[in-house]
Amino acid sequence: MDFVIRKGRKTDCKRTLELIQELAEYEKAPNEVTISLEELEIDGFGENSIYELLVAEQNNQIIGIALFYEKYSTWKGRCLYLEDLVVTKAKRGIGAGKALFEAVIAVAKEKESGRMEWQVLDWNTPAIDFYKSYQAELDGTWFNGRFTREQLEHIKL
Amino acid sequence: MDFVIRKGRKTDCKRTLELIQELAEYEKAPNEVTISLEELEIDGFGENSIYELLVAEQNNQIIGIALFYEKYSTWKGRCLYLEDLVVTKAKRGIGAGKALFEAVIAVAKEKESGRMEWQVLDWNTPAIDFYKSYQAELDGTWFNGRFTREQLEHIKL
Repeated sequence: MDFVIRKGRKTDCKRTLELIQELAEYEKAPNEVTISLEELEIDGFGENSIYELLVAEQNNQIIGIALFYEKYSTWKGRCLYLEDLVVTKAKRGIGAGKALFEAVIAVAKEKESGRMEWQVLDWNTPAIDFYKSYQAELDGTWFNGRFTREQLEHIKL
Repeated sequence: MDFVIRKGRKTDCKRTLELIQELAEYEKAPNEVTISLEELEIDGFGENSIYELLVAEQNNQIIGIALFYEKYSTWKGRCLYLEDLVVTKAKRGIGAGKALFEAVIAVAKEKESGRMEWQVLDWNTPAIDFYKSYQAELDGTWFNGRFTREQLEHIKL
């Protein structure tokens, strides 16, 4: 293992955005990433930050990221939500995903999170197998409901 | 319409917890609510609060709640997440759910949320029909992955 896991910095946001885009393409949603670099920097490293970032680094190159935030459950209280776990395609299979995921688990343990949660697409078999290897529960009984920003703007109240 | 929608207060948490339990029973998870009243009070009304609460009140009785928080999306930035929308069984059909839901939409518009999101069980037809009446997208292609608190405690890293 010739990479390290470390906390993300503001200067990592540019590469983070590339990896977010890479994941969106893998998830067949290449045009969905509309966030700006500036937003990402402010939301993670500004005064009122909302997410935390871990990166996997090899030879001064970021090869993977884990981005998470604190969500709320009316059943379990404060929980850790893993929004994105990405390892760039050329660097898969060297254990970076596993190291990142376990670093996030360590954070959830430290925070005494009520739960650790994430989502995975139902056809993403490699990711599903990976999560199952940790005995994670994968529950397919829920729909994700949503309004886009455009819908919100047009709903008349 | 003889009810009002107003912001929740700390003193509403006791009734809120009853409605959370009522929803959990409807969702066939009666034993999953392990949060305490004190936690709910701190998390919503303490110094470092994480959620916001709206209540529907009729004759000084709370008949429904909407509880939401700010989540993060690496595609859309800060989003509003509606965790629970509940109207007590005896008071359904008088428009309280609609009024609560639309009050949350108003908050999402005001916050300029990147999205408004929630989840609904795939067999909860009345709720699904309700959300569809707003042209909300309901996406069933994702699994919810999770570790419980007990699993987190037992995972060896």
